[in-house]
Amino acid sequence: MTGNRVADELDVVSVVSSRRHADSTPYVHKVGVPPKQSLFKEFKFTFKETFFHDDPLRPFKDQPTSKQLWLGIQAVFPILEWGRRYKLSMFKGDLIAGLTIASLCIPQDIGYAKLANMDPQFGLYSSFIPPLIYAVMGSSRDIAIGPVAVVSLLLGSMLQEEIDPKNKHEYQHLAFTATFFAGITQFVLGFFRLGFLIDFLSHAAIVGFMAGAAITISLQQLKGLLGMKTFTKKSDIVSVMRSVWTNVHHGWNWQTIVIGVAFLTFLLLAKYIGKTKKKLFWIPAIAPLISVIVSTFFVFITHAEKNGVQIVNHIERGINPPSVSEIHFTGNYMTKGLRIGVVAGMIALTEAIAIGRTFAAMKDYHLDGNKEMVALGTMNIVGSMTSCYVATGSFSRSAVNYMAGCNTAVSNIVMSCVVFLTLEVITPLFKYTPNAILASIIISAVVGLFDYQAMILIWKIDKFDFVACMGAFFGVVFASVEIGLLIAVAISFAKILLQVTRPRTAVLGRIPRTTVYRNVQQFPEAIKVPGVLIVRVDSAIYFSNSNYIRERILRLLNDEEELLKEINDARIQYLIIEMSPVTDIDTSGIHALEDLYKSLQKRDTQLVLANPGQVVLDKLHASDFANMVGDDKIFLTVGDAVMTLAPKMEP
Amino acid sequence: MTGNRVADELDVVSVVSSRRHADSTPYVHKVGVPPKQSLFKEFKFTFKETFFHDDPLRPFKDQPTSKQLWLGIQAVFPILEWGRRYKLSMFKGDLIAGLTIASLCIPQDIGYAKLANMDPQFGLYSSFIPPLIYAVMGSSRDIAIGPVAVVSLLLGSMLQEEIDPKNKHEYQHLAFTATFFAGITQFVLGFFRLGFLIDFLSHAAIVGFMAGAAITISLQQLKGLLGMKTFTKKSDIVSVMRSVWTNVHHGWNWQTIVIGVAFLTFLLLAKYIGKTKKKLFWIPAIAPLISVIVSTFFVFITHAEKNGVQIVNHIERGINPPSVSEIHFTGNYMTKGLRIGVVAGMIALTEAIAIGRTFAAMKDYHLDGNKEMVALGTMNIVGSMTSCYVATGSFSRSAVNYMAGCNTAVSNIVMSCVVFLTLEVITPLFKYTPNAILASIIISAVVGLFDYQAMILIWKIDKFDFVACMGAFFGVVFASVEIGLLIAVAISFAKILLQVTRPRTAVLGRIPRTTVYRNVQQFPEAIKVPGVLIVRVDSAIYFSNSNYIRERILRLLNDEEELLKEINDARIQYLIIEMSPVTDIDTSGIHALEDLYKSLQKRDTQLVLANPGQVVLDKLHASDFANMVGDDKIFLTVGDAVMTLAPKMEP
Repeated sequence: MTGNRVADELDVVSVVSSRRHADSTPYVHKVGVPPKQSLFKEFKFTFKETFFHDDPLRPFKDQPTSKQLWLGIQAVFPILEWGRRYKLSMFKGDLIAGLTIASLCIPQDIGYAKLANMDPQFGLYSSFIPPLIYAVMGSSRDIAIGPVAVVSLLLGSMLQEEIDPKNKHEYQHLAFTATFFAGITQFVLGFFRLGFLIDFLSHAAIVGFMAGAAITISLQQLKGLLGMKTFTKKSDIVSVMRSVWTNVHHGWNWQTIVIGVAFLTFLLLAKYIGKTKKKLFWIPAIAPLISVIVSTFFVFITHAEKNGVQIVNHIERGINPPSVSEIHFTGNYMTKGLRIGVVAGMIALTEAIAIGRTFAAMKDYHLDGNKEMVALGTMNIVGSMTSCYVATGSFSRSAVNYMAGCNTAVSNIVMSCVVFLTLEVITPLFKYTPNAILASIIISAVVGLFDYQAMILIWKIDKFDFVACMGAFFGVVFASVEIGLLIAVAISFAKILLQVTRPRTAVLGRIPRTTVYRNVQQFPEAIKVPGVLIVRVDSAIYFSNSNYIRERILRLLNDEEELLKEINDARIQYLIIEMSPVTDIDTSGIHALEDLYKSLQKRDTQLVLANPGQVVLDKLHASDFANMVGDDKIFLTVGDAVMTLAPKMEP
Repeated sequence: MTGNRVADELDVVSVVSSRRHADSTPYVHKVGVPPKQSLFKEFKFTFKETFFHDDPLRPFKDQPTSKQLWLGIQAVFPILEWGRRYKLSMFKGDLIAGLTIASLCIPQDIGYAKLANMDPQFGLYSSFIPPLIYAVMGSSRDIAIGPVAVVSLLLGSMLQEEIDPKNKHEYQHLAFTATFFAGITQFVLGFFRLGFLIDFLSHAAIVGFMAGAAITISLQQLKGLLGMKTFTKKSDIVSVMRSVWTNVHHGWNWQTIVIGVAFLTFLLLAKYIGKTKKKLFWIPAIAPLISVIVSTFFVFITHAEKNGVQIVNHIERGINPPSVSEIHFTGNYMTKGLRIGVVAGMIALTEAIAIGRTFAAMKDYHLDGNKEMVALGTMNIVGSMTSCYVATGSFSRSAVNYMAGCNTAVSNIVMSCVVFLTLEVITPLFKYTPNAILASIIISAVVGLFDYQAMILIWKIDKFDFVACMGAFFGVVFASVEIGLLIAVAISFAKILLQVTRPRTAVLGRIPRTTVYRNVQQFPEAIKVPGVLIVRVDSAIYFSNSNYIRERILRLLNDEEELLKEINDARIQYLIIEMSPVTDIDTSGIHALEDLYKSLQKRDTQLVLANPGQVVLDKLHASDFANMVGDDKIFLTVGDAVMTLAPKMEP
C-alpha cells in the first residue's frame, strides 16, 4: 500500500465532493441507529477494560494445557523466561551495576534504618532478602530494590506515634507487622488487578510530597550533623528548628560539625560532577562508601568519639534472623499494623511503579503494573518474616543501576551477594563510622527528591496541579508526612470532582475557507453562522453536571440573543449542540436534555444534535429522546447540520 | 439575515473547496498558538464558573448604589418584587390551590409527625410557620412547603437511634437541634454557593432511595393498619415482617383492619381516578380529608375505640410555642444534632430543589438553586425556634398545587392560614380519628414515590445507573435509610471515578464520500486509511487515566500492526490522535504523551495530533511538547492531517 494510493483515494473523494457541489444537492451522511450492543457484551467490555485492559491472558490463548501451565509459572516467575535467554555477555554489565549499587546502598541502608528508628543492621537485612525475591518474580530490568528514604521516614514517624522506639522489642513487633500488611496490601492490589488505584495520586502531588519529604528528612539529619544528643520527636519544620535552636549553646559538637560538613560538601560536589558529566556517574555512586571508609579510619586513629563525636558503635553481625514469631495479629498490633502497613505499602508501590514505568518506557519494554505489585507484595511478605522492613525500588539507586549498564535483575542478585558478605564479614568495621557521615549521605541522597525543575514545569502547565503540589509539600514540611499525603490525595480528588461538575462549553464558528467549526475563542477568525448558535459541550453529561450544562447552554443562548437584539439582527432559530466530546450520558443527562428541549420549544428555537457517539446515540434512542428531537435533527457533523438547515430558515 | 444568505455563504465555501481540489494544492488551516490567557483571568473564569456560573450579580451591574441596595433586598425577599406585580385575578387560582393543598396537608401532617416519632401537633406546626417564611424568601411559584414523608422517616429513624422517643423532652430537644443544624446546613450551602454539591446524588440514586423509602414507610404503617400495640423499632423489611408475623394471633385488631383497608381502598381508588383523568385531580386531593371526617364520625358514634381501635386521642390546641430554649449546643446534642441535621438537611434540599427545578422548567422561569437554599435554610432555622421539625417541598402536594392552578407562593400563605385556623379551632375534633386512617393516608401518599416507570427507563438507558438505583433501594429496604443513602452516594462516586479512570478510545475511519472520520464500530461503513492509525481519546487526559490511555493507544497500535502483518500489508507510519474530546490535560497527561512519543520514535512511527483544544494546546506549548512533536504535526482536523501526510508516506 503506497502513499500515492492513499492520495488517489482522497482525490476520488474530492471529485465526489466537487461533483455534489455542482449538482447543488449536498451529500449528507445519515447518522442512523448504531448496531445494538448486547448487555452481556457491554458488561464484559467494561469489566475487561477496567481490570484487564492490558490483556494479560493473551499469550495463553489457543495453547495446549501443558504449555498454558508453563506460561503460568513463567508469568509468576519471569526469571524462568529471561533466565533461559541469559548470556555471559550480559553478566559484565550486571556485575558492574550490581557492585556499584551495592557500594551505594550499604551506607544508605544504615542511615535509612535510623530514619525508621531501627538498628542499623535492619537496613542491611532489607537489602539482602527482598532483592533476591524481586529478581525471581519482578519484571523490571532496571529497578534497584532495598529500603528507601521516604518509606523509612514514613514508617518511622508513623510507628513512633504508636510505640516509643526505646521499647525495642515492641517497636520491632509493630514494624514487622506493618511490613507484613504492607506486603499483603501490595499483593492484594496486584492480584485483584486494582493497581489503577495508585494512579489516583497525581504526578504533581508526588512531586510535592517527595520534595516535602526531602526537606523533612534533611531536617532530621541535623541531629547527626550537629552532633546533638536530644532532639524533638516531631518532624515538622517549626518543632525541628526550635529544637536545633534551643540546643545551640550546649548541644552542638564542633568536631562533629566539621566532619559532617566537610563530607557533605564532598558528597554534593561528587553529585554535581555526576550530574554535569553523565559518564562520571560512578563518582557520586561510590563517593558515600569512600566517605564512610575515610571518616571511619579518621575517627579510629584520632579517637574523636572521645570528644563527643557520635559513632555507630555496633552493628549485629550475621544475616537476617527469622522474624515470623514477631508478627502479631492481636488487638493493637493488628489494627495499628494494618493502618500503617496500608499507607506505607501504597507509598512504596507508588515509588516502585513510577520507577519501573520510567525505565520500561526508556528501554521500550512492557511492564505489567499488577504483576509488579504481586512481586513487590510477595517480597515484603517474605521480608517481614526475615527481619526486613518495607523495601521498594529506590529512585537514586535505580538510576545508577541503569547508568552503570545493568541488563537484567541479576544486578540485584549481585548487590544482594555483596550485602551478604558485608553482613557476614565486615560489619564490625563500621564500629567507628561517625553518625554525621550517615547524616550527610542521607542528605546528599534525598537532595535529588527536591525536584524544583518539575515544580516549575507544573506551574507552567497547570496551576491547579501546582496547588496540589504545594499543598502536599507544605503539608509534609509544616505538619507531618501523613497530613501532607492526605492533602495531596484530597486535592487530587477535588480536581476530578471539579472536572466532572463544571465542564467547559464553547461557542463554535466556521473556520474561513473550510466547513470546519471550531471554538471562536481559540480561533478568533472563525465566523458565527447567523440565526444559529453552535455550542460544544466538553464532557460526558452525567448527574454531576447535567443541571450545570443545561443552565450554561441556556445562558449562552440568552447572551447571544441579547447581543443580536442590540444590533437588531434576527433571533436564534437553531441551537446546534456539537456532541463529539460528549462521550457518555446517563439518565440525569437525558432529563437535562429533555428540560432543555422543552425550554427551547417555548422560545420556538429548534434543538439540533451533531455527531453524537455510539453510546450516547444508543441511550438517546433507548430513552425516546431521539424521537422527541426528531431523527432529521441529528447530523454527522456541524457542517452537515448548517448546510441542511440554512435553506429552511425563515427570513 | 435570511437563510438564503447563509446558503450563499456556504456555496462560496463549496466553490473554494472545489477550486482547491482542482489546483490540487489542498488548503490546510494552521492551528497555531492560541491567544494566551492571563493567569488571573483564567483563575477568575474558573472561580466564576464554579460558584457563580448563573451570573446572579448581572442585574446589579451599572446601577446606582440605591438601586443596587433595593435590588439586593429584593434578591433576599423576592416577594417585594413579585408582590408589586400581584393582581387580584391571580388570587383566585392561589386561593383554590391553597385550600386544596391545605385539605391534603392537614391529615398528612398528623401522620408524618408520627413517622418522626413526634406528637401530631408538631406536624401541623411545621405547616404553619415554614410556608410563611418561604413565601417571603423563596422564588419557586409552585412548591408546597411542609413536612414530607421521607424526611420525617429519616429524621425519626436517626433520632430514635440516639434517644428513645418515650423520653419526650430529650427527644424533642434533639429534634429541634437537628432541625436547626439542617437549616444551617442549607443556608451555608446556599450562601457559599456550594449548591452543586447536591448534584452528586444522581437521579437514579434518588429514584431508588425514594422507592425504598416508600416501601419502608408503608411497612411502618402496618402497625396502625393492623392495629398492633407492640412493633419493632427497626425499619428493615425482615424485622418488620417478623414483628407483624409474631403478632398475628393476639396483636391484630379486626375492627381496625376493616376500617383501615376500606379507606385505603377508597384512597387508592381516588388516586387512580385522579391519575387517569387529570381534570379530576381534586378527588385524590380532598379524599384524605373526607376519609378523616367520615371515619372520625364513624368511630365517634360507634365508640369503636372501646373495641381496641386506636385513635389519635389528643392534639394540643393553639399555635406553635417558641422552642429556642430547646435547642442545645452542648456535648451530645451538638454532635448528634449536627450529624443528623446535615443528613436530613441535604435530603430535604435534594427533594425541594428537584421539585423547584421541575416546575420552573415546566413554566419556563429561572430558579437560582443557591438562593432557594438560603430561603429553605432560613425557613428551617426559624422553624427550629418555633417548634417545627425539618420542612421542605413535598412532591405530591406541589403537584396538586400546580394542577389546582397556583400562580405564586400566595397559595402557601393561604394553606398556612387554614392550618392556623385548624390549630386554633378544630384540633379537638381530631380526638376520635382512628390511627388506621392516618396509616392509610400515608400509604396512599407514598405509593407515588415508588416510580417503577422511572426504574424501567433507567434500566433501558444506563445499566450502571440501574445498579446505583437498586443499591439505594435494597439498602433502604433491607438495611436502613442511612445505609441506603450511603450506598447510593458510594455508587454514584464509583461511577465518576470509573469514568475518569477508564475513558473510552476509538479507532476512526473515513466515512465514504466525505472527509469526516468517525468510530469504525459506530459506522461500520467507515474505511481505515492504509498506513495510518487514527485513534480518538474520549476524555480529558489526567493523572487518573494518563497511564491507561498511553497503554491503550500502544495496544491498539500493536493489534493493528499484527493484523497488517497477517495480510502482509505495510506497517503503520503515522499515529494520528484525534484530540477533539480531550478537553484538558495535566502534567501527568503530558508525561504520558511524552512516553508515548518516545515509544513511537523507537518504532519509527510518527505521532500526529488533530484538533487539540485551546487549553490543551496552551499546555502542550508550555511544556514544550508541541515543539517535540513539531508544529507541522498538529492539524485542525483528521482530514487535514491525512491529506497532508498521505503524499509523504514511504511506499
